[in-house]
Parts: sequence; structure tokens; C-alpha cells
Amino acid sequence: MSQVELAHLNSCSKDDFVAALANIFEYSPWIAEKVAGARPFGGIKALFEAMKAAVERAPADLRLALIKAHPDLANKTQRAAGLTVDSTAEQNSIGLDRLSEGEYRAFERVNNAYRAKFGFPYIVCVRRQTRDSILRDFERRLPNDAATEMQASVEEICRIAALRLDQQVISDDRLAVHGRLSTHVLDTHCGKPAAGIAIELVELADLGASRVVTRAVTNADGRTDQPLIGGRPVPIGRYELNFSVGAYFSERNVPMSDPPFLDHIPLRFAVSEPEGHLHVPLLVTPWSYATYRGS
Amino acid sequence: MSQVELAHLNSCSKDDFVAALANIFEYSPWIAEKVAGARPFGGIKALFEAMKAAVERAPADLRLALIKAHPDLANKTQRAAGLTVDSTAEQNSIGLDRLSEGEYRAFERVNNAYRAKFGFPYIVCVRRQTRDSILRDFERRLPNDAATEMQASVEEICRIAALRLDQQVISDDRLAVHGRLSTHVLDTHCGKPAAGIAIELVELADLGASRVVTRAVTNADGRTDQPLIGGRPVPIGRYELNFSVGAYFSERNVPMSDPPFLDHIPLRFAVSEPEGHLHVPLLVTPWSYATYRGS
Amino acid sequence: MSQVELAHLNSCSKDDFVAALANIFEYSPWIAEKVAGARPFGGIKALFEAMKAAVERAPADLRLALIKAHPDLANKTQRAAGLTVDSTAEQNSIGLDRLSEGEYRAFERVNNAYRAKFGFPYIVCVRRQTRDSILRDFERRLPNDAATEMQASVEEICRIAALRLDQQVISDDRLAVHGRLSTHVLDTHCGKPAAGIAIELVELADLGASRVVTRAVTNADGRTDQPLIGGRPVPIGRYELNFSVGAYFSERNVPMSDPPFLDHIPLRFAVSEPEGHLHVPLLVTPWSYATYRGS
Amino acid sequence: MSQVELAHLNSCSKDDFVAALANIFEYSPWIAEKVAGARPFGGIKALFEAMKAAVERAPADLRLALIKAHPDLANKTQRAAGLTVDSTAEQNSIGLDRLSEGEYRAFERVNNAYRAKFGFPYIVCVRRQTRDSILRDFERRLPNDAATEMQASVEEICRIAALRLDQQVISDDRLAVHGRLSTHVLDTHCGKPAAGIAIELVELADLGASRVVTRAVTNADGRTDQPLIGGRPVPIGRYELNFSVGAYFSERNVPMSDPPFLDHIPLRFAVSEPEGHLHVPLLVTPWSYATYRGS
Repeated sequence: MSQVELAHLNSCSKDDFVAALANIFEYSPWIAEKVAGARPFGGIKALFEAMKAAVERAPADLRLALIKAHPDLANKTQRAAGLTVDSTAEQNSIGLDRLSEGEYRAFERVNNAYRAKFGFPYIVCVRRQTRDSILRDFERRLPNDAATEMQASVEEICRIAALRLDQQVISDDRLAVHGRLSTHVLDTHCGKPAAGIAIELVELADLGASRVVTRAVTNADGRTDQPLIGGRPVPIGRYELNFSVGAYFSERNVPMSDPPFLDHIPLRFAVSEPEGHLHVPLLVTPWSYATYRGS
Repeated sequence: MSQVELAHLNSCSKDDFVAALANIFEYSPWIAEKVAGARPFGGIKALFEAMKAAVERAPADLRLALIKAHPDLANKTQRAAGLTVDSTAEQNSIGLDRLSEGEYRAFERVNNAYRAKFGFPYIVCVRRQTRDSILRDFERRLPNDAATEMQASVEEICRIAALRLDQQVISDDRLAVHGRLSTHVLDTHCGKPAAGIAIELVELADLGASRVVTRAVTNADGRTDQPLIGGRPVPIGRYELNFSVGAYFSERNVPMSDPPFLDHIPLRFAVSEPEGHLHVPLLVTPWSYATYRGS
Repeated sequence: MSQVELAHLNSCSKDDFVAALANIFEYSPWIAEKVAGARPFGGIKALFEAMKAAVERAPADLRLALIKAHPDLANKTQRAAGLTVDSTAEQNSIGLDRLSEGEYRAFERVNNAYRAKFGFPYIVCVRRQTRDSILRDFERRLPNDAATEMQASVEEICRIAALRLDQQVISDDRLAVHGRLSTHVLDTHCGKPAAGIAIELVELADLGASRVVTRAVTNADGRTDQPLIGGRPVPIGRYELNFSVGAYFSERNVPMSDPPFLDHIPLRFAVSEPEGHLHVPLLVTPWSYATYRGS
Repeated sequence: MSQVELAHLNSCSKDDFVAALANIFEYSPWIAEKVAGARPFGGIKALFEAMKAAVERAPADLRLALIKAHPDLANKTQRAAGLTVDSTAEQNSIGLDRLSEGEYRAFERVNNAYRAKFGFPYIVCVRRQTRDSILRDFERRLPNDAATEMQASVEEICRIAALRLDQQVISDDRLAVHGRLSTHVLDTHCGKPAAGIAIELVELADLGASRVVTRAVTNADGRTDQPLIGGRPVPIGRYELNFSVGAYFSERNVPMSDPPFLDHIPLRFAVSEPEGHLHVPLLVTPWSYATYRGS
């Protein structure tokens, strides 16, 4: 999936334009065809809005076909038969290719129950989700009526498309599809940013094993050099940040109890806005700590 | 092990006195015999100090015999053959009768390594410990020389004796053998104590399963009706307190994200002073929290 | 105003009973007379409720006379002519005898404006107020109609009476007329209660000078031996608590900047419930602090 | 004092160079003369270091003359006779032209005592100080011996020179003479940055009146558009930040007590590192708040 400049897309042949964007919407080159005549686009936002409008204005049967063009989530048979490159990458990104047995069964149940009720697959933009949040979302959506779910599916499809477009098309403007999760450790015992604190971010899972998302060490400013999650949506879900403060204070010869009152501090929180900036700082002494949702 | 009034011990026959206190020190009635002539005792503290002094002033071989009179920790063969009622209750109180396979092997290793080096059993006052802290303590003590460990063993034996005496003898004064672990939840969103918060105290274990110590619900004052641990030493070890704040704020219709930013808040801390008063409060809004070692 | 046992009031002659309670309601012995026949009273609460009911059930002209029997607040002429002992003590307790020029004029304006509109004096239970809150209360009450203010005056009169009764009559039960203001300093730098911190409680005033209410030093538990305000209502108003933390940390050789980042920490807050228990703790390191409304 | 490009200073005539920098060191063009031959300078840092080295390597009598070329602080007679434009601007910037009577007398005492002991004026780089810190600094320096104070004076003179150079010479690099004081308000009641909070920064003074340094209102990110102090050293001294949180929560219809428990929150702190970045945030609900030294 090589990247392409918007300027090129604006000036190339219609065929090349459609070919380049054929799979922004899964197996649905007709959407790129629909908007090719509206070129040139002033930016990626304008391009995306045009494609989205094409979907929304399409006849109902075409929208339904678009929905049905999507694969099930975590379906082994379909995976064996082959998904699009995009779908495979998306599903793998949240671990749908390596589910626990319990998770696998839960996804199978979801797919079947949803398809049995609505006649089309359960679609969700997985890059904005964790395995847990997908399963919870399903519980929320299953009771809906078909019209509501048609609408919800189109919204999820547009979110998938926006992320694919963001990865594929280079433009001066950006789609608002990225979020950020960051932290900051203030050592309020000595009044300075805490440097050298080992941090681990874990995605919590109800059914399968919790999964380490990333590890990092705080720099001289008490922050991590890179955001814990950045340059992509922050998946909706529950997380635990672990801070190794015992080792930090011990190395600085700060008097502590034995065993240290605080050693590995867990902050457990949920992400609900994948495109938002979520800052989860830690203010800490060997005997106290505080956190809050920052921005 | 029925309780007995100090006044009665002061006035009964020497034989009855010795019989009543025969097992305060494991299988060692000679200590009660030694102090019987010093009656009457003004209080349980005076009685304990007299018994402790008798041990400390005893010839080295007698002290060694006292040490050797103690059973190994978590030794299945010895347990099958029968321990004293006190030893059984003590070992069971921290779960030495239901260890995981990994823990069992670890204790076996500890007992054998210690006995191989020193020629007497590894003794620790288990009511002041968790399984984890006993194993960590062993790592700290094994490098010591025999004299240091003789001394350490006698100290642990006196701690065991103090707790047995405290349970058995009723007196106006009390031995300082009890600690307390308490909590308090302040809802700083509405400026009031948080009532109705479900709390769970878990003892963390490196080798075996973590174990729920107690569950409670905060009362109108944001506290638990009983201390989380009280009327006994607070075992040295690592703990996690869990507070169900998501349900609490949800019931009060406080606006929250979905899923709630904070739902189950874990406070992870260690206890290092079994006879101390440790207060671990939580100040909480749906978006922030703080804790500290209080008193 | 010597204290008297309720038991005595229950058994003495009607004349003695009325004499003892003649001024519970300002210059209005008829209220005591009214309830004398209902003796014996089971407690001071029952006695107070009976007196209050007598006022509320009295004909409107009698209630108006009761209201008019009260002096103006801070009126020099009336003070020169002589107030009841109770009124004098009450007014002096909040400094109405030593107002700044600005405050004196403000009170004069309040008295005159109120009397001009309603034809009776502006009455407020001053022991539950500060000079500031009385003046603010006036702004809130002046727009009311006469019926509302008759009712408000009676309520204030009953509050005055309850406090006089509480001071004068000894009973097993107590009227709920006392509040409490307390503090607690936790040193989260070393994880212990902060002992030896000098504290000053100041009542803030808009028009006159702020006034030191009390000074104290924290004890080994980080608390003050006596509540900052206790055994009386906590006057509605704005306060500042000052904690000398710079000296505290300096004496403990804690590394600090020069000048210390934190030296005298002011906590500024308002009291709104004179009969409540208000706890204003301080969690502090040389580089951070936190406070909250506790209970 | 128009600004000049370093490139121009590097290429102009020696006379123009000396003229341009004649008063970087008070009445001491010889320092510019001394370094003119070392041109071109790679940056303003190199220029400053050269001038500083020229001072430090100058014969003692020349250094003493440089010291004596400086005016007293807040000396009315000297001011009437005329100071350099720089000295006037510097002294006025911290209010030495509008001292209270008490402050004026204190400065007079300082000047006289210092000159009496050392034979030269008391010199301090006033742009890094408040009136209070200058007076406190004097108490610290007066007991020193003459050599120490010669050295201290030269250091202060170099700090004055660095700031003058920074204002006058445009270069790609910058001297590290600027600090920053900033704040951030997090509303932990609703989990968002607090927008629209009125803030007042006050410089506290022991002898004279406290002085409002700046007023600002928090923006959508809970910060002020400009740092509270920036683009200059943050004067050493004691400050109070006031946050109008009562109005903020009231406008958002957050339930509060009457009067509000928290209305105007004062944070009182000291600045000790004029070139540092000091961040003083506020985490606040209507019932709690916290602050810490951030960075």
C-alpha cells in the first residue's frame, strides 16, 4: 500500500485515481469513481468528505452491498480464504489473529448473533477499539433495529475509510483520526520531574490475557520521548499504567520502609475518545501519589 | 485454648500456672516454671517480660533446645504427625496449609537450606507475615552467621509467645501486638465522605495466587465499620486495595465517560510494621484520585 | 448567668422556673410561663421544642413584640443605654463592640434600611455569624416581604434561644448547636503526621481588619490538641488557615530552595454550616500541597 | 537604545563597535574596546564571554573602578542628578522609583551600611530581584569580607551586562537570561482544563505594598495565552497567585455551599531561580485543590 501525494491524485487519469483508492472502502471502487469528477480536491479532508457523501447518497441497496462486502471479525475460515491487505492489517493490529480460546468463541458468538438478526456482518472500525470494547459495543448494538444498525455500519465504514485514506494519501492537511496517550511523572518529594522511571502500559482484557502495549522510561523532563500511544487512534478500552517508583527512589537513596510502601504503582483507567489527547500524569513521593485526567 | 484471667494465674497453684502457660513457648513449660515464683504479676506486660527474660538468661543449650522444639513451616510430614494446636492455627492463619505447588516447593527449599546451614529450623512469627514476606525474609537471613540467627530465632519465638499470651490471658493492660489497617474514601467531586463504595483487600503473592483478605462497603462516614485488618498484627507483605468507584458515581448520576475513566481503582502498597496503624485513604472524583500513607 | 440542672427546673416552683428562663428569649418571660405547666421535660431538646412551639403558636402581635424586644446590632446608643447581659456577650463575641469605622457605618446603614422597610430591628443569631456574613445576609434578606422576614426573625430568635439554653441548662441530652473546625497536617515527604507546625486561623473581613481567631501547633499526630473552633457554632464566614511549613521542613534539614518554594501556606475557605464538622487537612511536601473538605 | 545585529557589530568600525556597546558595562566602554580586536564573534554567547573575561582579567583597580561606576539603588539624589538610561529602566522595572516610605528607608540603610563597610556601592542585578529579595540578599552579603564582595559585585555586574546585551544585540543564538513562570488549571470535577478562570499574580512585599504583576484569564486549554512572566528573568521573591474558582464553578451551575467553600484560591510560593522554568498548576474541584512545582 504505497503512499501517494494528493497532488498526483488530483492530476492523474481517472483510472489511476480509482485504482489508487479502490479499497479505501472495502471492495468498493465505485465510491472513488463517483468522486473522480469532482477533482481537484483542496485537501484530504475535502476528498474524504466527498467520498463519505457519495456513500451516504448512494441507493440503499448499494450501501447494503458495501456493508456486506466486509468480512467478519476474527473469522478463521474467512482469514484462511484471504482478506484484503487492509482488513488483515487492521484485524491483526488489535490481535484478532491471536485470540484466546474464550475470546475466539466470544467473537464467533457475536458474528453469528449479529448476522442472524440483521443479515449483514457486524462491522466496527477495529483500529479504534480493543478486543474488550468490540465485545461490549456488540452488547450495546445488538438490541437496535436494522435501520439504526445500517446507519451505524456506514459510520464505522467511514471511520475505517478515513484511517486508510490517512495512511495512503499525503496532503498538507490531515484528517482528525489520530489521538494521543501520554504521561508525566513529577517527583514531589524533591520537586523535580522524575527521570528514569520504568513505565509499562498494559491493555486489560476480560476474556483473554492482558497485553503489554508499550514500555518506556521517563526522560529528564519526566515524560516519555514518544507518546505511549500516538500517530493513530487510541483504542477504546481499559488500561493499566505501571510505574516502577520503588526502584527510582531507592536509586536516589530516599529513605523508605522495607518493603517500600509504594513500589509498582498501577493506574487503571479507560479510554473513551480515540481521537482525543489523554494525559495521565503521576505526582509521587515514596508515601503518596495522585493522578488525574489531563489534556 | 480457653482464656484465663491474670488474677487467677496470680493466685492459683504453681502447677496450674505452669499448665496454663505450658505452650506459650512451644513445648517448653520450663519457662512458665521459671517465673512462677515471681508472682503476682502487675499485668500481662510484666508477665511477658519475665518469661522473655527467663529465655534470654537461660543457658545456651536450653535456648537451642527451645529453638529446635519448633516445627518447620509448611512441612507436610510434620503436619501429618501433628503440630501443637497453636502452631497449626498459626500456620493455617496465613495459608501454609493450602500452598500452591510453587510455594510449597519454595518453603521446602527454605526449610532445608536453613536447617542444613544452621542445624535448627527456620523460625518466624508467621502471624506477622505473609507467605511472600517469609520467603523474602529467608533470603535476608540465610547469609547470617549462627549467633545472629540464634538471636533472631529467639526474637521470633518471643513474638510468637507474646501473641499466644495476648490470646490466652485476660488482663487490664495489653501487649502491643496489634496493628491496624484502615481506609477512608472522600468524594472530592461533591465534598463529602463517599458512602457505599465496595472495597476489596487483596494480599499479593509472587508465587501463589493472590488472596482476598476482606471485602467491605464504606459507611456514611466513608470508612469501613471495622478496620480492614485489626485486633491482630498486620502481616508484612504487599497488598492491593480495590475501590469500585465507577458504580458509586454512576449510581449518583455523575456525568462520566463511557467506559468510565475510573472504574475499579487499585491502590498497591506494602505493610512493613505489623504493630503500626496504617491508614490508606482515597480522595476521588470521576477524573482524579490521590492516596497517601496516613496514620 | 449561672448554670442550672434540668432536674431542678423540672421540680422547682413555677416562679423559679420562669425566673431562670426569663431571658432565654430576649425580654420575654411569657414564653417560659407558657411552658411551665408542661413540666417535667425529658431533656433539654424537649424543653427547647416546647418553648419554640410556644413562640410559633403565639398570636402575631405577641411574636412581633418579641421581635421588637431585640436590640439593633452594633448600635452605640443602645449599647450605652444598656443591653441584656446575653445580648452584650453575644455581640461582643464577634467583635461588634470594636468595629472599624467602615464596618460601623455599614451596620448603621443595615439597621436603618431594615427598620425603615419592616418597622422592626434586623435580627440575626450573631454567634453563628461573622461581621461579613451578617452584612451579606442582610443584602439577601432586605428584598424579602414582611411576612418572610417575620418568619426569618423568629427562626433567628429561636437559634439565639437554643444557644442561650445550651449555655444555661445542664441536661443529659444536648441541643445540636455546636460545630467544629479541625485540621490535620500530613507530611507526605516523609510519610508521617507533621508535628510542630505553627498554625494560625484568621477570620477574613471585607470592611474591617482580618482577625486572628486562634493559633496552635500540631501535635505528634499532626493535629491540634483542641479543635480550631469547637464547643460552639462555627461562625459562617471566610477564613484563612496559615501553616508555617518552611520552618518545619527547615528544622528537619529537608533540602529546599532559597527562599523556600513553600513557606507560609494559606488555605482560604468559607464556613457555611455552623453546626457541621468541617475538617480542612493539609498534605504537604516542600514542593507540593493539597487540601480538601473533610469531615 | 536601538537594537543592532551581531553581524553589523562584527563588521563595523572599532569606534562604532565600542560606541554601540559602551554602556553594556555601566560607564565602562573600555571593556568593549578590549574585545573589539577579537571580532568576529560567532554568536552573542561568544561576545558576552569575551567581555566577561575582559572584566575578570582586568587589574583589580580597574575592576574596582567598574564597581564604583554603579549607582546606589533607589537613591533619590543620584536619580535627580541622572542615571544612565539603562540603570533608570532597570531600577524602575522593579519599582525602585515608587517605594513606600518604609522601603525607601530600608534601601537607604542598606546603601549606607554597605558603602560604609566596603567603600563601594551595593550592586545587585535588579531585573532578577524583587524589592524584598534585594533587602534579604543584603543581609546575607553584608557579613562577607571585601574580597568576597568584590567577586560578588563582578558577578552581579556581569548579570546586568548579559541582560543589557540580550536586549540590545540581535543574534541567532541567545543568552540564557530568560526564565518563565506559568500556570495551568485543571478542573478535576469535570475532568477538563478549566477555561475562563481569572488569575492574578501578586508580588508580596514585607515592607511596602504588595503589587499586582499581571492579570490573565485561562484559555480553552486551562493555560494563559502568555506566560505569567516570560521573556525576562523571573524575579527572585515571594508571590501569590489568585484563582477565582468560585465564579468559575458558579457559572457552570456546579452545586456549591453558600458562601462557596472555595472562592479565591491563593497559592503562595517563592521564586529562587530567575532563569528557570517554574510551573505552578492548580488541580481543583469546588471542595479540594492541589498544587505542585512543575516544570
